[in-house]
Amino acid sequence: MEEGQSASNGGLSHRWPRYDAAALGFRHYWYPVLESRKLRRRPRATTLCGEKIVLLRDKGKVHALHDRCPHRGVPLSAGRREFPGFLTCRYHGWTYDVATGELVAALTDGPDSPICGLADVRVKTYPVEERAGLIWVYIGDEPHPPVEDDIPEELLLPDAVVEPMVELRQGNWRHAMENAVDEAHARYLHRRTPFALFRKFPAYQTNVRMAPDGKWLRRLSKPIFDTADYPRVGKWPGNEGFWRKAGGQVIVGRSRLPGIFSVGHKNWLDFQIFVPVDADQQLTVQVSMRRTSGLGALIWRLRFWTYIRFFHHIILQRWEDGFIVDAIDAPPEYLFRPDVAIVGWRKWCHETARRSPAESAARPASGTSDALAHARQI
Amino acid sequence: MEEGQSASNGGLSHRWPRYDAAALGFRHYWYPVLESRKLRRRPRATTLCGEKIVLLRDKGKVHALHDRCPHRGVPLSAGRREFPGFLTCRYHGWTYDVATGELVAALTDGPDSPICGLADVRVKTYPVEERAGLIWVYIGDEPHPPVEDDIPEELLLPDAVVEPMVELRQGNWRHAMENAVDEAHARYLHRRTPFALFRKFPAYQTNVRMAPDGKWLRRLSKPIFDTADYPRVGKWPGNEGFWRKAGGQVIVGRSRLPGIFSVGHKNWLDFQIFVPVDADQQLTVQVSMRRTSGLGALIWRLRFWTYIRFFHHIILQRWEDGFIVDAIDAPPEYLFRPDVAIVGWRKWCHETARRSPAESAARPASGTSDALAHARQI
Amino acid sequence: MEEGQSASNGGLSHRWPRYDAAALGFRHYWYPVLESRKLRRRPRATTLCGEKIVLLRDKGKVHALHDRCPHRGVPLSAGRREFPGFLTCRYHGWTYDVATGELVAALTDGPDSPICGLADVRVKTYPVEERAGLIWVYIGDEPHPPVEDDIPEELLLPDAVVEPMVELRQGNWRHAMENAVDEAHARYLHRRTPFALFRKFPAYQTNVRMAPDGKWLRRLSKPIFDTADYPRVGKWPGNEGFWRKAGGQVIVGRSRLPGIFSVGHKNWLDFQIFVPVDADQQLTVQVSMRRTSGLGALIWRLRFWTYIRFFHHIILQRWEDGFIVDAIDAPPEYLFRPDVAIVGWRKWCHETARRSPAESAARPASGTSDALAHARQI
Repeated sequence: MEEGQSASNGGLSHRWPRYDAAALGFRHYWYPVLESRKLRRRPRATTLCGEKIVLLRDKGKVHALHDRCPHRGVPLSAGRREFPGFLTCRYHGWTYDVATGELVAALTDGPDSPICGLADVRVKTYPVEERAGLIWVYIGDEPHPPVEDDIPEELLLPDAVVEPMVELRQGNWRHAMENAVDEAHARYLHRRTPFALFRKFPAYQTNVRMAPDGKWLRRLSKPIFDTADYPRVGKWPGNEGFWRKAGGQVIVGRSRLPGIFSVGHKNWLDFQIFVPVDADQQLTVQVSMRRTSGLGALIWRLRFWTYIRFFHHIILQRWEDGFIVDAIDAPPEYLFRPDVAIVGWRKWCHETARRSPAESAARPASGTSDALAHARQI
Repeated sequence: MEEGQSASNGGLSHRWPRYDAAALGFRHYWYPVLESRKLRRRPRATTLCGEKIVLLRDKGKVHALHDRCPHRGVPLSAGRREFPGFLTCRYHGWTYDVATGELVAALTDGPDSPICGLADVRVKTYPVEERAGLIWVYIGDEPHPPVEDDIPEELLLPDAVVEPMVELRQGNWRHAMENAVDEAHARYLHRRTPFALFRKFPAYQTNVRMAPDGKWLRRLSKPIFDTADYPRVGKWPGNEGFWRKAGGQVIVGRSRLPGIFSVGHKNWLDFQIFVPVDADQQLTVQVSMRRTSGLGALIWRLRFWTYIRFFHHIILQRWEDGFIVDAIDAPPEYLFRPDVAIVGWRKWCHETARRSPAESAARPASGTSDALAHARQI
Repeated sequence: MEEGQSASNGGLSHRWPRYDAAALGFRHYWYPVLESRKLRRRPRATTLCGEKIVLLRDKGKVHALHDRCPHRGVPLSAGRREFPGFLTCRYHGWTYDVATGELVAALTDGPDSPICGLADVRVKTYPVEERAGLIWVYIGDEPHPPVEDDIPEELLLPDAVVEPMVELRQGNWRHAMENAVDEAHARYLHRRTPFALFRKFPAYQTNVRMAPDGKWLRRLSKPIFDTADYPRVGKWPGNEGFWRKAGGQVIVGRSRLPGIFSVGHKNWLDFQIFVPVDADQQLTVQVSMRRTSGLGALIWRLRFWTYIRFFHHIILQRWEDGFIVDAIDAPPEYLFRPDVAIVGWRKWCHETARRSPAESAARPASGTSDALAHARQI
């Protein structure tokens, strides 16, 4: 028996130390934390991977700083914009360069205040970028990779029309992401969701496996639509209505670090990004996109706001998935055959999650090829 | 001085280790947890002695299972009844035999799911019965005694017309039960309760003692109704109204394990059962009964719903006693003469509380006769 | 480098052990806990320096007792006044002499209850006095000093017309008091407070120092009103309106133990007393006074209720200061030049805070002269 393997779970419940340790998320990644349109003149507070961060927009550009004045610990998000390019703490007027975090003035100590410019009085800044209608913050060691490395490339296409939606949810980010990675629950939990009114869901799937595809881990399986006879309980699923059509499009889910799940619909893509806040909460970032423009873009946005947002994001994702993610009480757990997807995801994270630049330099080979080799064995 | 005895309390504050350890209640007993009429098709969640339990009714019969799917820890009380005789977890369709807790199907893994029938994937079931309008759950080791062993026999009489009422209250079950066992507080706390509008309460009582009577520990005392002259403060009780009649019926309280108190009124009986939920909460189960039938039963129920429920159960028991039970902050405590009743109850519990069948087999003599001998010495 | 000095804070962040240990306040002092007019017949519960206290008025005189019946820990503040001069516990009628805390009767155990008069069944009493519209409780060892020792003498003048206001606030009392001691924050946090509509605040101050003046530690500084050119950020303060007049009265703050801050206005005085409740909460007691009488007193009270109470006590002190005191998250902290006032206060407390009478007797010299000597060095 392999080390770290639990016999009682038939070999499925490996322990993946890096994944197990990531209650506050994986560092050295970019995370989306707020819709761009929601950051105006007023600074906004958020928490990312356990760190308090204030976001603010200055001359159009977004900046992110540690949300704590070193003087007496008052949140800088309560501060004011006395001077362009600077954020001033509400308490005593300590004034920071929003780009560097440097303390440039302590208003209430006069223009000659000796505290200014001391190297150790400085607020930590975070790399921050705007893409795809979202504000992305890098958390981890420097040097940081370009933000494009951590954004699904479809969202960056010139003709991508993107609709993002960010909300705070209960439950650790891993439970939320595992719920997305897990295909099986959709066959039962979401079976009667209104969005599937005219669609027959598969009953179950066989041959679940995870296949690496660049940065993505693709979930493959064979869906079975037929009603089957389950020993001792009877036939399932029953007659669900003549208007529901089986087959049609097969939804293929893809997952990638640090916690992005993507599913393709007929002519649009849905992304779910689970962003660690603390050990008990996550931001659920849902991004819907379609490649279109002009009148097509208008129609697409109309469809999003009248239909997709409510039936997908609110009913299915908030009320159904959100309820479950908050209710999950694991470990302990006892995995079953379809959970090969979850185990594959955990293993993928353990093996390929980005290391700090320093650590990476000290390691000989690339983790990615290891991960590919391993993942193929799942 | 006896071991465990506290000198500062004049010998009243013995320590009874089994009682002290029973913050979550005594095991190996049946407890009432819900009114029968409140359990319909929808499963109901409850907590008993710290264990989460889902109750459900199937083909008229009640079943009780541990309220946690072993797969990922989601509560089964959120589940569905896909097939008669089975409860299906809301998340992935794991389906359990409600009578045995056996996993019989995992819907989203198809009819051949290898996880079904594995001996270690099983939900714990609890013995459960319906009697006297209540659902009773056995918590403890097997083999369990018949439920009738733990129900006051009056409630099981063929002509008993029973009205039960269950509510969640703050405070450990022992504080609630000790409040019931304690006679003295009624002379003050409940003195002006509306139910006693036409009744003069005793001022105090003398010669308080506890006398075993089968499974019951009977509280005896001599009530004193006269106004007395208390040194330094003056006469008490004062004139409480000519319409209040002293004397009349003497209320005798009886207590029994695991936390049942009974008091007899002129032609009806009142039972209070304090059911441990966790260390800080208890279910207060109040059961009023009268032996009657036909038109008499109708009149009795009318009297219960128009008078007894409000004046006894809500004003006296919820607002007066419930307030105090939540406010008690003991230990430390400093007992006085009437608390011989509480001490007698604690000792009785320590000495006679049921042990697991295995423990009982290993012990030579019956605890009951010990308890009787001890109790007579109180 | 001096012991306990933090290099990183340029010598400002000394550690003052007695001050650091005073999370629940300094003992052996009188504290105001309630407006006199709010204590009528009904007992009132409060918490002072972590101790639960019940206040009650009997024959006009106020008494303070530990708010816990030794019998079973029920709060005496739920009790009744069965007999003049005594407080009776709501649960079993244990009756205490409000002046001495002595148990004089246990009503439900009859007039001969042997528990009465036992030396160790007694409720702790606290010295309590009424002065200046407030109820003052002494917490600490006996013998206690006269209450007048701990009340600013202005409040005791025969022609003082006093308006007190007590409210519970979040945050440790030291953060609240340090906020008052700190002059610098007013130049920024309160700069646009409505009360200063016609007044120009200084921009900053120089030569901040603390000077002992009897029981008071007086804060001195030179206010600078001119707009200055701050390197890198620009001119500050900007044009704040022609109607604002600079100069005029210079507000001098004075601080004294155990947590009293005073500031003088043109013809009235404002006192802020920060009373420790527990480690996370304080009572903020604001007392405004003016020397006047007759019609002048009426006008003064009118001015207080129409103007001062709202603009000073609610907007400036509750919404502005109260918000900050709750938001302070220190230590760690990084002090700047104006914080010499806070450091002076901490040092003053550490060196001059009253010791128990026993400790004081054992110490040779008076702490006050030490404190004076030290304070002059700040």
